[in-house]
Amino acid sequence: MVDLPEYACACGRSYEVSVGRWRCDCGGVLDLAAVPLAWSPRGDDHSLWRYADAIPVPGRRFSLGEGMTPLVEASLGGAGSPGGDDGVWFKVEYVSPTGSFKDRGAVVLAALADLIGAPRLVADSSGNAGTAMAAYAARAGVAAEIFVPSGVSEKKLAQIRGHGARVTVVEGPREETARAAVERVEATGAFYASHVYNPFFYEGTKTYALEVFEQLGGTAPDALVLPAGNGTLVIGAYLGFAGLRAAGLVDRVPRIVAVQAELCAPVAEAFTSGRADVEAWSAAGTAEAPGPGERTVAGRTVAEGIAIAAPARGARILEIVRETGGAVVTVSEKEIALSHAALAARGLWVEPTGAVAYAAVRGLRSCGSPLTEGTVVAPLCGSGLKASM
Amino acid sequence: MVDLPEYACACGRSYEVSVGRWRCDCGGVLDLAAVPLAWSPRGDDHSLWRYADAIPVPGRRFSLGEGMTPLVEASLGGAGSPGGDDGVWFKVEYVSPTGSFKDRGAVVLAALADLIGAPRLVADSSGNAGTAMAAYAARAGVAAEIFVPSGVSEKKLAQIRGHGARVTVVEGPREETARAAVERVEATGAFYASHVYNPFFYEGTKTYALEVFEQLGGTAPDALVLPAGNGTLVIGAYLGFAGLRAAGLVDRVPRIVAVQAELCAPVAEAFTSGRADVEAWSAAGTAEAPGPGERTVAGRTVAEGIAIAAPARGARILEIVRETGGAVVTVSEKEIALSHAALAARGLWVEPTGAVAYAAVRGLRSCGSPLTEGTVVAPLCGSGLKASM
Repeated sequence: MVDLPEYACACGRSYEVSVGRWRCDCGGVLDLAAVPLAWSPRGDDHSLWRYADAIPVPGRRFSLGEGMTPLVEASLGGAGSPGGDDGVWFKVEYVSPTGSFKDRGAVVLAALADLIGAPRLVADSSGNAGTAMAAYAARAGVAAEIFVPSGVSEKKLAQIRGHGARVTVVEGPREETARAAVERVEATGAFYASHVYNPFFYEGTKTYALEVFEQLGGTAPDALVLPAGNGTLVIGAYLGFAGLRAAGLVDRVPRIVAVQAELCAPVAEAFTSGRADVEAWSAAGTAEAPGPGERTVAGRTVAEGIAIAAPARGARILEIVRETGGAVVTVSEKEIALSHAALAARGLWVEPTGAVAYAAVRGLRSCGSPLTEGTVVAPLCGSGLKASM
Repeated sequence: MVDLPEYACACGRSYEVSVGRWRCDCGGVLDLAAVPLAWSPRGDDHSLWRYADAIPVPGRRFSLGEGMTPLVEASLGGAGSPGGDDGVWFKVEYVSPTGSFKDRGAVVLAALADLIGAPRLVADSSGNAGTAMAAYAARAGVAAEIFVPSGVSEKKLAQIRGHGARVTVVEGPREETARAAVERVEATGAFYASHVYNPFFYEGTKTYALEVFEQLGGTAPDALVLPAGNGTLVIGAYLGFAGLRAAGLVDRVPRIVAVQAELCAPVAEAFTSGRADVEAWSAAGTAEAPGPGERTVAGRTVAEGIAIAAPARGARILEIVRETGGAVVTVSEKEIALSHAALAARGLWVEPTGAVAYAAVRGLRSCGSPLTEGTVVAPLCGSGLKASM
């Protein structure tokens, strides 16, 4: 038997990890039974596997060089650096093998698929998760099928196919793509390597927090400002700092400020309304097309990486920001564009979604919000080589 | 006075480093007066500045998170890994801030420009060096002007301009672009941030070797297989290992195998002919267009990053491969394409030039060449997100 933590649902059910299990019988999303965080970074390992002891997936590791991304100061303390950036750090996630932070989760899911003997895996994505999963499946030697919505660029399809994955293009709204992937999983018994449903993905994104902690000299920043669509980074970062807190290495989890685009802000709306759960965003500007007669907002957000109308773990995101004294905030398209330009002017080249966290920092700092007082870390999630403004 | 090594020419002249000096009065290329390598890696720094003591540019550092790129095994020792890759390591240079190894040199030139008070810098490039130099100039707050040949993609121009650099597009063959850049330098007194002429660039690419040494547990591999156009990585890697040898940390410099594309192979031709210097390659398939009546070869190489017809430091490349017991070899367009596919099938996504070194390893190994016996390190120089096959 492989020693893995169990899947656990909020309804009380739990399950052994197996190839076919991807959600609870009640329909709920699965988490992992809590495992204490083992803090023993391997000093000579400059990849995510530096924290192998903290990642509950024993077995082979299929590194493409993920993790240990740079942490650079926003301000240089010199000419052209607005004082408003004092204490702000960028975690340069686009310096990753496939150009986004999704590699952190993908490598762990690939290792898991190998460990439990999955003959093939299925994933659905219109963006970074699809290329990341295809790359790591290739590295692990696990056959992969990636479901993508129509409209995904030929360049991205060529990369996914180059990694040997089968691509299935699904017409219709984004949710149809997910539905087709789930049907394939149910019909074939494939491993559903979902960055939304599989909680081991967060064991990978958790390393974001562990690196920040170590790179700041063994301290926690005051705030983590994180883009939030499905919340993969919010949940992972929380897990990391909560683990460090439980291990007595920090005394608190930093304030977590989740950021959404104004044009697709279901979690922000729930946060502002004081609700415990998230209602689906029924508007244009989202990854899902609106139905006839639904509320519409002019245009789609350029931050397509976080345009998720109905995040499956929305309630968890709300819990996390409330527990940590954070918030869910929104940024406008104009603020995203201005922040993209401000980053480029410092030599940092991100895809539009990658400018969202910094846009929030600028906005909050300019109005004197206590949310971004002190030391603040914001990720630059995806490479500008993938998509530009 | 700033403490910098002097510029030195093979003709015997030497010069203090200054903003305007970019070549010898005799027209020769400048090297740096040898400085002993100070080996004291900063264990908590995961950027190139881990080796700050070995880089003879004191002063401010403008990191975008360059250096400490992953070193991953080509073979996984499992299914699908051909035994022919035993002992082969990939240095994943495309996991760099601007997606190529050129960041290593660019960050050092930007630091130097800042240190010597250059008000602006000029560079010429059709590829990775241009975006790297623009990004680091932006980070350092130094105004930049990048000269590019016509035909450079809009996407790349947008990035260079996004970093605040002025772009000047030059019609005609690639050499006209370099000539225009030099004219601007001479006319304005700008700092010529050339990856070909400025020897401080190699103080940056030198860190490639220092990282390989450290990542292999303080040992040298048997061979370094390196793509060679202008030879920025060949010269840098040699400098690094020669410095480690002089410091008594390794007993030899690894065999250096320089790789060119068959369609543009001036250094390989000189090597095979036993010449000490390189004759300009007058053929199609190069970065420079052939004159009327010159020898032509069908097509241009896809490995545009190394298609240099008249490398200014060709003689130095020849010296290095001969001293280390290496060679200059060529790879065909078909071998480049097959190697690109073989890398992609393992999850590694490179631009065409990035497949060249591995193509050479495959070719040499398949014919049992002693050049690639033992432990071999090959770089994957540029990201497939920049250009695909």
